[in-house]
Amino acid sequence: MQFYLDGYKPGDPFVADPHPSLAERPTGLPEEADVVILGCGPAGLLLAAQLAEFPELRTVIVDRRDGPLEVGQADGVACRTVEIFETFGLADQLIHEGYQVNEVTFWRPDPEDHDSIVRTGRIDDVEDDLSEMPHMIVNQARMLTYLRDHMRRSATRAEPFYGLHATDVQVDTESNAEHPATVTLQHLEDFEPTGETSTIRARYVVGCDGARSATRESIGRSLEGDEANQSWGVLDVLAVTDFPDIRLKSTIQSEQGSLLIIPREGGYLVRLYIELDNDRDAEMLQNRSATPEKLTAVANRILHPYSIDVKHVGWWSVYEVGQRLCDRFDDVGDAEVGSRLPRVFIAGDACHTHSAKAGQGMNVSMADSWNLGWKLGTVLNGTSRPEVLSTYSAERQQVAQELIDFDREFAALFSERPDDDGEETDPTRFQNYFRDKGRFTAGVAVRYGPSVLTAASPHQHVAEGFQLGMRFHSAPVIRLADAKPVHLGHAARADGAWRLYAFADRAHPSAPDSRLRELAEFLASQDSPIARFTPPDADPDSVIDVRAVLQQGHRDVTVEDVPPVLLPRKGPFELIDYEKVFCPDPATDIFDRRGLDRDHGALVVVRPDQYVAHVLPLDAHHELVDFLRGALVE
Amino acid sequence: MQFYLDGYKPGDPFVADPHPSLAERPTGLPEEADVVILGCGPAGLLLAAQLAEFPELRTVIVDRRDGPLEVGQADGVACRTVEIFETFGLADQLIHEGYQVNEVTFWRPDPEDHDSIVRTGRIDDVEDDLSEMPHMIVNQARMLTYLRDHMRRSATRAEPFYGLHATDVQVDTESNAEHPATVTLQHLEDFEPTGETSTIRARYVVGCDGARSATRESIGRSLEGDEANQSWGVLDVLAVTDFPDIRLKSTIQSEQGSLLIIPREGGYLVRLYIELDNDRDAEMLQNRSATPEKLTAVANRILHPYSIDVKHVGWWSVYEVGQRLCDRFDDVGDAEVGSRLPRVFIAGDACHTHSAKAGQGMNVSMADSWNLGWKLGTVLNGTSRPEVLSTYSAERQQVAQELIDFDREFAALFSERPDDDGEETDPTRFQNYFRDKGRFTAGVAVRYGPSVLTAASPHQHVAEGFQLGMRFHSAPVIRLADAKPVHLGHAARADGAWRLYAFADRAHPSAPDSRLRELAEFLASQDSPIARFTPPDADPDSVIDVRAVLQQGHRDVTVEDVPPVLLPRKGPFELIDYEKVFCPDPATDIFDRRGLDRDHGALVVVRPDQYVAHVLPLDAHHELVDFLRGALVE
Ligand SMILES: Cc1cc2nc3c(=O)[nH]c(=O)nc-3n(C[C@H](O)[C@H](O)[C@H](O)COP(=O)(O)OP(=O)(O)OC[C@H]3O[C@@H](n4cnc5c(N)ncnc54)[C@H](O)[C@@H]3O)c2cc1C
Ligand SMILES: Cc1cc2nc3c(=O)[nH]c(=O)nc-3n(C[C@H](O)[C@H](O)[C@H](O)COP(=O)(O)OP(=O)(O)OC[C@H]3O[C@@H](n4cnc5c(N)ncnc54)[C@H](O)[C@@H]3O)c2cc1C
Repeated sequence: MQFYLDGYKPGDPFVADPHPSLAERPTGLPEEADVVILGCGPAGLLLAAQLAEFPELRTVIVDRRDGPLEVGQADGVACRTVEIFETFGLADQLIHEGYQVNEVTFWRPDPEDHDSIVRTGRIDDVEDDLSEMPHMIVNQARMLTYLRDHMRRSATRAEPFYGLHATDVQVDTESNAEHPATVTLQHLEDFEPTGETSTIRARYVVGCDGARSATRESIGRSLEGDEANQSWGVLDVLAVTDFPDIRLKSTIQSEQGSLLIIPREGGYLVRLYIELDNDRDAEMLQNRSATPEKLTAVANRILHPYSIDVKHVGWWSVYEVGQRLCDRFDDVGDAEVGSRLPRVFIAGDACHTHSAKAGQGMNVSMADSWNLGWKLGTVLNGTSRPEVLSTYSAERQQVAQELIDFDREFAALFSERPDDDGEETDPTRFQNYFRDKGRFTAGVAVRYGPSVLTAASPHQHVAEGFQLGMRFHSAPVIRLADAKPVHLGHAARADGAWRLYAFADRAHPSAPDSRLRELAEFLASQDSPIARFTPPDADPDSVIDVRAVLQQGHRDVTVEDVPPVLLPRKGPFELIDYEKVFCPDPATDIFDRRGLDRDHGALVVVRPDQYVAHVLPLDAHHELVDFLRGALVE
Repeated sequence: MQFYLDGYKPGDPFVADPHPSLAERPTGLPEEADVVILGCGPAGLLLAAQLAEFPELRTVIVDRRDGPLEVGQADGVACRTVEIFETFGLADQLIHEGYQVNEVTFWRPDPEDHDSIVRTGRIDDVEDDLSEMPHMIVNQARMLTYLRDHMRRSATRAEPFYGLHATDVQVDTESNAEHPATVTLQHLEDFEPTGETSTIRARYVVGCDGARSATRESIGRSLEGDEANQSWGVLDVLAVTDFPDIRLKSTIQSEQGSLLIIPREGGYLVRLYIELDNDRDAEMLQNRSATPEKLTAVANRILHPYSIDVKHVGWWSVYEVGQRLCDRFDDVGDAEVGSRLPRVFIAGDACHTHSAKAGQGMNVSMADSWNLGWKLGTVLNGTSRPEVLSTYSAERQQVAQELIDFDREFAALFSERPDDDGEETDPTRFQNYFRDKGRFTAGVAVRYGPSVLTAASPHQHVAEGFQLGMRFHSAPVIRLADAKPVHLGHAARADGAWRLYAFADRAHPSAPDSRLRELAEFLASQDSPIARFTPPDADPDSVIDVRAVLQQGHRDVTVEDVPPVLLPRKGPFELIDYEKVFCPDPATDIFDRRGLDRDHGALVVVRPDQYVAHVLPLDAHHELVDFLRGALVE
């Protein structure tokens, strides 16, 4: 993380200077905003944290609740989500606080004694080199706090407005072309209307208002799919047990039902997901009379011969959801596609719901708004073409469809009674499925299809390890200027900038035949995408951030060998940024690890949300400009 | 880090519940305290942070300044200091914010052109496996902020009192046996006396009041040694330069003088230590007329043919110190040794001063009070014998003497003109000295001599890698219960507890011939040191925390195989603590790495400050008790 570019200051360097526009802004709810976000769940707050990085924009986020969520709801944080949090500088805190999921165990009925369970398998939860980040468990309330803290430290000093319930969102481009969307907000106190109502006009509205989304209704969309089909009890407890794997994520499929154990942060707390049986637990389900005691009794039934003695219940709930999905995630009707751009979006549970079993709820919701955030920010600050806004629904609806399909299959396999197919059931079936879907549940299997943001490149072979449409898969490198071992992917910040990763050819970077040098010269020229797409007065890396990885060892080159475009001058003092050039870490050479073409080098174009947009040879200078022209404003 | 033992709560788990005694405490300066700390520099605040972990004690810390230090002073944070910060849970933040020193370069006059400099060497700053922690650069003001933040989050909610200047410390055990020390405090505003004076009576007083310590004077001690003999200009700047190693720690010994470049946090800031020459810079030194411009001119003279263009000065100073030292660090006169115990201590610059060149100032000062803190805390809470207080001066005065000797040599070599001995000077002399002293400057070469706290054990051979009297050298292991890769040394928290690390013999831990099991049975018995030295009602690991490392792989054992003393029951719910047992990390087996006796196992007894107190065979049950009896109260 870089700071002090504008001058050294005492105090916490992670607290940004307040943006000058704050001085003129009234503190209450404004009448107009660039973006209004409805809902302070994971989707809404991640979006607000991203837009806080665009302090020249006015973003407002509201929630019907009286204040922040304090406990409960989701707790699974997939590797990909930790990667996203890293771009905000929040990963360290999350990893420091959470439980790290390293291994998973599988328990099934003992073949000798069907009333008992035995461990049938134990596997790594995350396969090697899937992500540089671990799979974590942290309560949703804490995840939301990290994001609010980040907003507060940003130049916008942003805070959510609570006690505001959106009842309606209307778009009228005729009467107000600049701020066409109007949101009606009912004031609540303790979830009761106070009688007061406000309206706010916005350029864009994003409904992150959960499964009962009023935004979704306002734009005439609906969740289609299965009604709630399975009920699960969720219990966060402090307990004493003789079950030996209580500090490992464990899946238990006994003759008495299914149980998922998720150890939680702090070393003692544990979450139990307890499948409720429509027959056996009918009474509690039909009368909605579940209690922690009843749920614990079911857990003990499933765990036999082990038992668990609950000493303290931190939070509990009975959670029923089916797999449901919207057909589009914005307000553009089927007939309007191509003729107008969206003004209202929905994200998270507002457009897809599914079971909690694979721990996807919080993750996919944040991934939705992560996809949307930079698009809104850069369209509004004038650097991206408005057309990129159409890619949101296209990209995320497809991901949600895959999630729903996966969840249906996963939930069925998990609830499958071991004896459903008689004694011959393959006891490793669920375990194998779980392992095979590891990339998916880690959030790193997402692949966005071709669009203005993702090229259908014929050059994938020069960088096999950076697959088009997938997230840039980080690898360790050594930073040239300070010899620091770092992760290349951590060059990415949540700043809305594109990144060009130039992997050099074999030539020394100062050699006249170096293709990297030729590229650098092009990038320094007037035809360069940097010259074309960066607003005057902005830092040279604010829209397109160029990074290079050399093939030479970091002691075999010095910064004197590096072309000037890789040592950009920045800020009021025109200081040199020395953090653009990297060399392989000999322990794990990135050229080998990511299948890079050593003879020709490779240029990997990465979107602000870290998805690989294009893969090019180093000398495809004009192809690069042509591609970026589809997304960026000249 | 473990939390929620007393029940799950919303909010930041790193903020402790306020201690019940806070309710009864007046908020202003009290008249009586257990410990009064004078001075909020590194020594004072580290001590206050440590004592904040003993919330039943009343600790007061004051400073003559109006408020916290905002900028400047030291910035080198040695590996050992980062290890100490880890025990407070502060290492992540420090590493996240700071500059990491990876390599050092050495520049000398170009043999072809004496007016120019050339790079003559480049080495790793920290040798492999010296510490699991990096060598960091973070400004002293930020280090102090971390410690104050920690105090604020602790159960004491402690805050320093500013604007109080200690003028006198008197001890009178006759008239007030309980609180024999009286501190007189003059109230200041902006360093000017307001006329008001307070007194406070204390059980113990610690003078962390810097080089001009009033505490030192009150107890009749003085700093002896060389007067300031060399002057250095210190400049924290944002600058543009063509010197290629500006982002590496670089030592430059040119014909024009010596310069040390320390890159700083944030990627742009850099500190220059510029040697001033008594002849050439006489004007500026004698008239005390140094300015950043004059210092920059000297830097440019030394750097030639490179140059540096300073754009912004963050902080600057001219720093003159000699090597000076006190003969004792407490108030016990030579004639009283053995007949009475100390009541007043001095730490940090109050008892030793030396040059800034090797970056030791902040580190050794904190190491002083780190040595003292747990001793005061545990003597006052009644678990340690008061005799341990005498070891402070003995242990730390010796370390300070070594530092002074080192600093004199280091400073001389650094300032040595390349041509002092003619052309034949070995240009690698300083570089080799620098490398050879790497352990020392990293803070990990300290070895405390035999005392009640450090045994002269004849059993060192069973654990060669854990040297008696030296800090417990952490190594990676896998935690059994949750398969998490962790550092064994991070079991240590700043909680005043002793740690017994039992490295198992080859037998399976559930086998009847397992020596580990025999030890565990002894530790569970009535003769056990746990039973003897732990107050009733306290958690079983609060005085002696037992950890075991098995030889088996973590998938080859389960928690069912572990003896109960390694699964202690804790807190109001008697929950099981699962974090006491570890297995080797196959990538770097701790038994091999630390030279542990695989046939017999080993028991390593570690003090609360992580120094190895004793090394024993696993079956030396009674030797263990006999040793601990010297330090702990039965
Ligand atoms: C009770 C409960 C228990 C859950 N348990 C689990 C679990 O155990 N495991 C798991 O993986 N997932 C669980 N989930 C699901 C998980 O929390 C969601 O998938 C995730 O929170 C979705 O994030 P979101 O931001 O899309 O929506 P939400 O987190 O639902 O956030 C929506 C926000 O919008 C606000 N809001 C709603 N309507 C309006 C309106 N009209 N105007 C203004 N504000 C509005 C709400 O107050 C809420 O704060 C649970 C969800 C709930 C509700
Ligand atoms: C101006 C300056 C520049 C320095 N520059 C460097 C550097 O560049 N590099 C480096 O490695 N080291 C440097 N040092 C040294 C380094 O800061 C010290 O070694 C380190 O701070 C020692 O810590 P300490 O806690 O022992 O004492 P200090 O940090 O000196 O803290 C002593 C504290 O006690 C307070 N105090 C003093 N007298 C009283 C009293 N009578 N009553 C109440 N409070 C009192 C002071 O206000 C101060 O806050 C510098 C020191 C100074 C003063």
